[in-house]
Amino acid sequence: MVEPVTIAVDVMGGDLGPDVVLDGALQALRADSALHLALVGPADVVEPFAAAHDRTRAVAATEVIAMGEHPAAAVRAKKDSSIVVGCRLVKEGQAQGFFSAGSTGACLAAATLVVGRVKGVKRPALGQVLPAYARPCLLIDVGANADCKPEYLVQFAQMGVVYMESIMGVSAPRVGLLNIGSEDTKGDEFAQKAHQLLAASVPQFAGNCEGGNLMAGDFDVVVCDGFTGNVCLKTIEGTAKTLFKYVKDALMASLPSKLGALLVKGDLSRLKGKLSPETYGGTPLLGVKGAVIVGHGSSNATAVANGIAVAATTVRANVAGVIADTVARAGSATPGGEGEAAASDAR
Amino acid sequence: MVEPVTIAVDVMGGDLGPDVVLDGALQALRADSALHLALVGPADVVEPFAAAHDRTRAVAATEVIAMGEHPAAAVRAKKDSSIVVGCRLVKEGQAQGFFSAGSTGACLAAATLVVGRVKGVKRPALGQVLPAYARPCLLIDVGANADCKPEYLVQFAQMGVVYMESIMGVSAPRVGLLNIGSEDTKGDEFAQKAHQLLAASVPQFAGNCEGGNLMAGDFDVVVCDGFTGNVCLKTIEGTAKTLFKYVKDALMASLPSKLGALLVKGDLSRLKGKLSPETYGGTPLLGVKGAVIVGHGSSNATAVANGIAVAATTVRANVAGVIADTVARAGSATPGGEGEAAASDAR
Repeated sequence: MVEPVTIAVDVMGGDLGPDVVLDGALQALRADSALHLALVGPADVVEPFAAAHDRTRAVAATEVIAMGEHPAAAVRAKKDSSIVVGCRLVKEGQAQGFFSAGSTGACLAAATLVVGRVKGVKRPALGQVLPAYARPCLLIDVGANADCKPEYLVQFAQMGVVYMESIMGVSAPRVGLLNIGSEDTKGDEFAQKAHQLLAASVPQFAGNCEGGNLMAGDFDVVVCDGFTGNVCLKTIEGTAKTLFKYVKDALMASLPSKLGALLVKGDLSRLKGKLSPETYGGTPLLGVKGAVIVGHGSSNATAVANGIAVAATTVRANVAGVIADTVARAGSATPGGEGEAAASDAR
Repeated sequence: MVEPVTIAVDVMGGDLGPDVVLDGALQALRADSALHLALVGPADVVEPFAAAHDRTRAVAATEVIAMGEHPAAAVRAKKDSSIVVGCRLVKEGQAQGFFSAGSTGACLAAATLVVGRVKGVKRPALGQVLPAYARPCLLIDVGANADCKPEYLVQFAQMGVVYMESIMGVSAPRVGLLNIGSEDTKGDEFAQKAHQLLAASVPQFAGNCEGGNLMAGDFDVVVCDGFTGNVCLKTIEGTAKTLFKYVKDALMASLPSKLGALLVKGDLSRLKGKLSPETYGGTPLLGVKGAVIVGHGSSNATAVANGIAVAATTVRANVAGVIADTVARAGSATPGGEGEAAASDAR
């Protein structure tokens, strides 16, 4: 029997509005008979839904954190926002995980301030599973830590390995360091230092991954600082968007292409779905207690359902616990792992 | 009448061999009746070609710098390599520009050590014109300077503006800073500092450019450190490659798509050509004297011809001279422009 689990869901998260989130919640409930949901949002939205559906519970939250707000300030000021209330449910044990398609920064701030870090983890990080060719690849950190020290990347690697093993079922994941050359000595000072630390303390480390290999499926986990990772992730999304526009233009460029377009459009739109950011069910925030999954702002109901399902799997696989064990085991063995690097190492 | 110009060409550069480079040289000569070439390479390769073609001259070079060699060390050790000899021709005024599809690092090292920097330029930088939607976008630096200080980005912006105005004919180019958020205060410490400097001293500065906007055509010049720029450029190339593989798979996924593929393949392969790295004729190294253009290793004859043509245009537009003037004019007016930032500002 599947272990019962309760996930708190931010009904106010996402650009498409609460109805879409509730539709996604319903899909998730239908797909998993041991799933319980705590729906967090305005009473007039969540209470009627909870009254009408089994395994759901309404938790009123009177405030909402908007996309543009300063994350940490908003989390401190809006104690009754859906994001803060959802995280509080996890802290108090009323839920084991939290899903939101709202502000990534606010989720990150609330998860860190309210739910708390896993013991031994220096910096929680956002991972994004990329639809690389042949097999998915987790890019971590994609934006939680703009300024990093090289040793943080060792923990990003350890957390990424746990996630890919537990959630994506990858055995013996290959870890790469995002860098500007394949040779060991390549890169700026930061990357050179990170390479040394990874080589010394992460058994799954397989060398540098250049930008060109990120979508090729050569690695299962690729680590980097949050600035580079965020630029990279958005560049991939933007390049895909621009290329699809170019392909669309090409399919309208001549009469044969226009006819051909009618024949290929089914498979091309299936491809677009496969490459959409929702395929892998949101972005895990690794290194905080419980299971916190952040969905894309544009999440539709299926994406919400996938995100909730990933949160449930993350709880059942005890990802936070395995990360705690891994970090504790590695802690004393990591050269420089517990030290503080000089400020000049920050990127 | 078009101004006569001599470009030195590295016949040993490029993965496809000297015959392809010579084919490209021939195409370039045919397209520009005032173009003269100094073909640099082994005597038995360049002399017969020069004997058979007008406006060409053979310059023997007995050594070759391979792709994997350490750039600066190879440039110092191999004084008679085609890259060093080509750069020496520019230094001595026997040629006004140099084109090579060989090692980017070696071209950069030779251009800096042999040809020399434009007075006032702190760090020469590599620009790459991206096939962004609707209009091209120059990303600079894409790898010359892995470790940067924020004030270098001010000069990258100034040099990028000169290039886009002079070579690509863009009037009033919009300059963006590659960053992880659109608001002015976003980014890591490095990006925040760079933002302030750009806002204070580059009139064309229009704000932050996120990774997702890079290929959208929102900016004409986007500046960043060479680490982020290189990762980004290769990510764009790799994403495009992976997407075309996915599109190819989708076109083989069903019988209708297979039939449709026959009709659309002409326009799709024209699109592929349009997006290839050779479209804009190689990567300019800005901030060195003369005109140094580095081609992609995979350059075919057309790409070589385009690269030589861009080198000639760069000479005729006096890009190096305009950069010298711009930097001199901006120098005294730039806050912090002549100072040395603390090591902690390096990314």
